Amino acid sequence: MNYEAIFKEAIASLKDEKRYRVFADLERITGKHPRAILRRNGEEREIVVWCSNDYLAMGHNPKVIEASANATYTMGAGSGGTRNISGTNNPLVQLEAELADWHGKEAALTFTSGFVSNEAAISTLAKLLPDCLILSDQLNHASMIAGVRNSGSAKKVWRHNDLEHLEDLLRSAGNERAKLIVFESVYSMDGDIAPIERIADLADKYNAMTYIDEVHAVGMYGERGAGICERDGVMDRMDVIEGTLAKAVGVMGGYITGSSAIVDAVRSYAPGFIFTTSLPPSLAAAATTSIRHLKTSSEERDAQQRQAQRTKDRLNAAGLPVMHSETHIIPILVADPDLCKKASDMLLEKHDIYIQPINYPTVPRGLERLRITPGPAHSDELIDHLVTSMVDVWNELGIDFKSDATLEEEAAPTAAILHHAAGG
Amino acid sequence: MNYEAIFKEAIASLKDEKRYRVFADLERITGKHPRAILRRNGEEREIVVWCSNDYLAMGHNPKVIEASANATYTMGAGSGGTRNISGTNNPLVQLEAELADWHGKEAALTFTSGFVSNEAAISTLAKLLPDCLILSDQLNHASMIAGVRNSGSAKKVWRHNDLEHLEDLLRSAGNERAKLIVFESVYSMDGDIAPIERIADLADKYNAMTYIDEVHAVGMYGERGAGICERDGVMDRMDVIEGTLAKAVGVMGGYITGSSAIVDAVRSYAPGFIFTTSLPPSLAAAATTSIRHLKTSSEERDAQQRQAQRTKDRLNAAGLPVMHSETHIIPILVADPDLCKKASDMLLEKHDIYIQPINYPTVPRGLERLRITPGPAHSDELIDHLVTSMVDVWNELGIDFKSDATLEEEAAPTAAILHHAAGG
Repeated sequence: MNYEAIFKEAIASLKDEKRYRVFADLERITGKHPRAILRRNGEEREIVVWCSNDYLAMGHNPKVIEASANATYTMGAGSGGTRNISGTNNPLVQLEAELADWHGKEAALTFTSGFVSNEAAISTLAKLLPDCLILSDQLNHASMIAGVRNSGSAKKVWRHNDLEHLEDLLRSAGNERAKLIVFESVYSMDGDIAPIERIADLADKYNAMTYIDEVHAVGMYGERGAGICERDGVMDRMDVIEGTLAKAVGVMGGYITGSSAIVDAVRSYAPGFIFTTSLPPSLAAAATTSIRHLKTSSEERDAQQRQAQRTKDRLNAAGLPVMHSETHIIPILVADPDLCKKASDMLLEKHDIYIQPINYPTVPRGLERLRITPGPAHSDELIDHLVTSMVDVWNELGIDFKSDATLEEEAAPTAAILHHAAGG
Repeated sequence: MNYEAIFKEAIASLKDEKRYRVFADLERITGKHPRAILRRNGEEREIVVWCSNDYLAMGHNPKVIEASANATYTMGAGSGGTRNISGTNNPLVQLEAELADWHGKEAALTFTSGFVSNEAAISTLAKLLPDCLILSDQLNHASMIAGVRNSGSAKKVWRHNDLEHLEDLLRSAGNERAKLIVFESVYSMDGDIAPIERIADLADKYNAMTYIDEVHAVGMYGERGAGICERDGVMDRMDVIEGTLAKAVGVMGGYITGSSAIVDAVRSYAPGFIFTTSLPPSLAAAATTSIRHLKTSSEERDAQQRQAQRTKDRLNAAGLPVMHSETHIIPILVADPDLCKKASDMLLEKHDIYIQPINYPTVPRGLERLRITPGPAHSDELIDHLVTSMVDVWNELGIDFKSDATLEEEAAPTAAILHHAAGG
């Protein structure tokens, strides 16, 4: 048994499949978002980031920065413990009250990441429910799949956003059996939206519990920015709304909101919560400040929607293979891991544009893409530059422009693969 | 199926068992560590924290605070993405180089928590090794147990620190089979230390891979503070050294260090790493600054050892049931969840001393305890106050002082329970 050789082989196979990932060493510059300094091979140069999840640039909001630095100066760099053992800092208590209010729920609970919040909450809730059947959307995020798996509960995967399939599964499980429907509002790699109200109707009809991931929606939809459930007026119909502090909120961490009993159960039983150091005061204070801002300001949301629409329109007009998206997320199909990486590299080298290639396991094989996330600070000039640069790269590399074939491929995501593979 | 009722019952059963946890709402005060403000029922008062995991108060070190605030001002409050998608910030790249150097390894990888680093690394490495057998110490932390479970690999639990038992298991697995030995250097609830060199000898003899958790040792042992492996001169004999940035380093996050191939394999295959927003520049910069300080300064370590020894000596002299510990961790046996909670409450109410009760599932049932972690800033006066206060509480509540019975109980931890229960 040569251990080192086995790990080297595992890496070599990724390289063979052209999906070995190289991380870009970036230094963001406050006040200059979306520009950042890229460091590579001892060189530094300024590039434009077109794939940030700091969707509204709230991580660079001066009030948010000030709140974070102030908390560090007054309370220190870390919390000093798990939640139970000296780590429940006052800014975190305030943050959880803010989150509960945001989503109209009795209580909230924070985690160090959205991944952990999904893994810990789904697995714990399902474990506590006797003989629970989890009904999981086919395109759910890897963190939700991890939660489903680690619960040890029975699961059935319903075809993505397919209400008939979901109803079939609910009906055959019967009204008496405990059932947990887990799904997302905005699917992050495709940018489509779940039919939340109709899922809630089905949950009522068959007495199922609902768990929705709003990670790519919180901060960005609804009058106070609480997400798609707020926009659609269905927050009260979801038993658990899960979200993140790391994307539109601009900081880091994940959370769940729900009834006091649900939140207390996760708080009390989830190992991934219990045995983890809490978020530092700086991050909690920054997140609270950001959310308070987003509850009353629509400026960032409006600008994001405007610039995202403009980007989509220009890319479409140029004939680039823009995949259908109902949101601020703009996937451009490449459908080949090697070309996807090459397109990303050429955008960076030739045009100073940074868009990370999205390959398997983040998306199914054959649906490799560039994923663009325009924000309020991507100006009209930057959009024009993006479009001409992409057209150049598409021509240089001979990637397919928009065609019937690409549209067909998009309409039938081979996502069943993803559900089984992304967890490992 | 009444979902709400089931979660309420789950909570009620914790209350019945006297192990329902109430978090203390704390505000640490830079410059006044270990003092903090406690908020409860609308009241505020200053208390002394005796159970912080910010073991060396590095979270309040002025250089660390300055580094954190500076990075926030220049780069923002969050990283803006996962490691692969725009989140690899330059301070994080620097931190990983610092960590690799600290432990004398080729590479390092950071995670949002020690829990995630153990879960992700152990499960991923074991999955990549064909037909891997994991050999796990009986008292391993919940996060390691989660990693073992989620690997889906075969496992055998060896009796805590029992080399004969470990050798039996290695021998019967045979030299050819892939074997991963996972254990800790310092066991956080008992404060005892593993026989690392002899475990390394066994690993060599039977061709096993070694994975050590140094979470409660990094920063505190060894000439440059890299942990017990450094102190014992055996860093190079461990394949993976895992640690945390959240305890002696004073910030937040977890990490692994190892060969380039091992670290790259985890980086490339672990969902808990891939699908998670990276640590913000502020936390990375703070951690790097803290580690650089700890590599050259022994002042904090020396003061911690001195005050921890003094605390142990005084508590022992007063006849309190101090459990045997070879480290800075001082467990005081209560052996009853209700009394443990009451002792903690009385220390807080009557004496302004905050020591969280440690009940199941953090320790096995019957071994409930108060766990004291003196640091460099716990003065001789504070130690005297702690001892007289604890004696008062022990008398008031009629808890057993040191006796043969308590010593026996301590010698035979019923930890097999823990290995099976702590994961859920």
